[in-house]
Amino acid sequence: MSAQILYGKPCADKILDDVREATREKRTTLYAVGFDNPQWNQYLHTLRNSGEKCGINVCSNTLDENTSVFTLCDVLQRVCGLQDADGLILQQPLPIQYMPAVKFVDVSLDVDCVNPESVLNLYRGTSGFRPATPSAVLRLLDFYGEKIAGKHVVIVGRGSVGKPLALMMLARDATVTVCHSKTLNLPEICKTADILVSACGMPGLVNQNFVNENALVVDVGLSFVNGKSHGDVSPDVCEKCRALAPAPGGVGPVTRAVLFENLVSKNKSCNDN
Amino acid sequence: MSAQILYGKPCADKILDDVREATREKRTTLYAVGFDNPQWNQYLHTLRNSGEKCGINVCSNTLDENTSVFTLCDVLQRVCGLQDADGLILQQPLPIQYMPAVKFVDVSLDVDCVNPESVLNLYRGTSGFRPATPSAVLRLLDFYGEKIAGKHVVIVGRGSVGKPLALMMLARDATVTVCHSKTLNLPEICKTADILVSACGMPGLVNQNFVNENALVVDVGLSFVNGKSHGDVSPDVCEKCRALAPAPGGVGPVTRAVLFENLVSKNKSCNDN
Repeated sequence: MSAQILYGKPCADKILDDVREATREKRTTLYAVGFDNPQWNQYLHTLRNSGEKCGINVCSNTLDENTSVFTLCDVLQRVCGLQDADGLILQQPLPIQYMPAVKFVDVSLDVDCVNPESVLNLYRGTSGFRPATPSAVLRLLDFYGEKIAGKHVVIVGRGSVGKPLALMMLARDATVTVCHSKTLNLPEICKTADILVSACGMPGLVNQNFVNENALVVDVGLSFVNGKSHGDVSPDVCEKCRALAPAPGGVGPVTRAVLFENLVSKNKSCNDN
Repeated sequence: MSAQILYGKPCADKILDDVREATREKRTTLYAVGFDNPQWNQYLHTLRNSGEKCGINVCSNTLDENTSVFTLCDVLQRVCGLQDADGLILQQPLPIQYMPAVKFVDVSLDVDCVNPESVLNLYRGTSGFRPATPSAVLRLLDFYGEKIAGKHVVIVGRGSVGKPLALMMLARDATVTVCHSKTLNLPEICKTADILVSACGMPGLVNQNFVNENALVVDVGLSFVNGKSHGDVSPDVCEKCRALAPAPGGVGPVTRAVLFENLVSKNKSCNDN
């Protein structure tokens, strides 16, 4: 028996069709502010390429790594004042010293949910933008017809994906367990999951001992080892579980699509999706 | 075999001793803004009595229930500008139409953690005030020498106590499960807990089937039925579990003490306590 593989591409394509439809009427611009480093530059490159294919103009504002927090605040305020700005993303993870700047990302442009008010909306489950990666996990599950309410969702990782995902899964009526590096009996706890999401960036951590045969496994970890990308989930897990969204190829493509969707949707009534 | 009963009073007394010490040097004032209703008035009455015993002056500003959100914002701004204001609490739960006002509770006075920036601190685990009730749960466990890191904490309830408590337990390295009204197999999941916290306000919900013999149970539910107060935990649970913080008499007294402690401590380096 082998697991159903939940590829992200068909889900992303469906979302991007709608994005293209929206940008046909109005050219859309995403501003991206970050610091000059290889990961951010690579991310911008991919973002620009994907944007071009669906009528989204990605304008980057790359700052020197010695930029002060005050300058960053100024830059963000200026970008938020631009008439063509439909959305603004800030490099993630943001070095700790720049954290006070997040409130200068206007809530109405905050398509990746960094402003305190956006986080408050996430926390409360009220209307507003949600961060793209955890949104993409939910979208992928929805796309494949997976029911979330009442399920026991175990999340491995309490970082920039795990924590918001836990809140969003709660808002979707899942019973949620968050595990992390200090969790004892990790395999045992993971084995109780209906839906197991790993987002901790430890290649191959999740093996066959972590899953039951009815489990749906979502791999959100992505690490680079010797130039090759690896997920958190060992490939042989698909011999044992019911379904697997692999990394790469699962949540990844959906994440960018969801970011663009946020950009064109501009504050839907509720984005817990 | 009967469980150890974790009474809140000795823990609260210890905290209040320190509060008294602090207010001896400087008279301290807590402003309380809310709407005219019996629960809030009763809460104010208790708060004032407790405050008097440890040098804390509780000033209330009770608004008519027809007050507009704009007026509430004005009132909050005015109170935050008062020179003698050491802290400001806003009625909880706050009716939804008044939610936009929470940002007018200045972060430096926000001793019950309602301002978006305070919530962001809670969410991120960064320095700042934490809400009093979940803080009181942690303080009570600390007082009785209970280790939290690595423990499996199951929380029943995802409201104004359960959600922040989940984040604070995570910040203390617990593995955290959040259950709620849509959880299937609630007793089974609760039975896996090292520490079980019930904060859902359903009298007697947690019975002997919810606990294992090594479990520590914390009752944060408090409901009034026919004029008598009841916790979420059925009294006979103490025949089966290792330890029980009952309601009333457990977390309750510690909650007010923690609120006063926040008031005199004014932004300690980290309040995840």
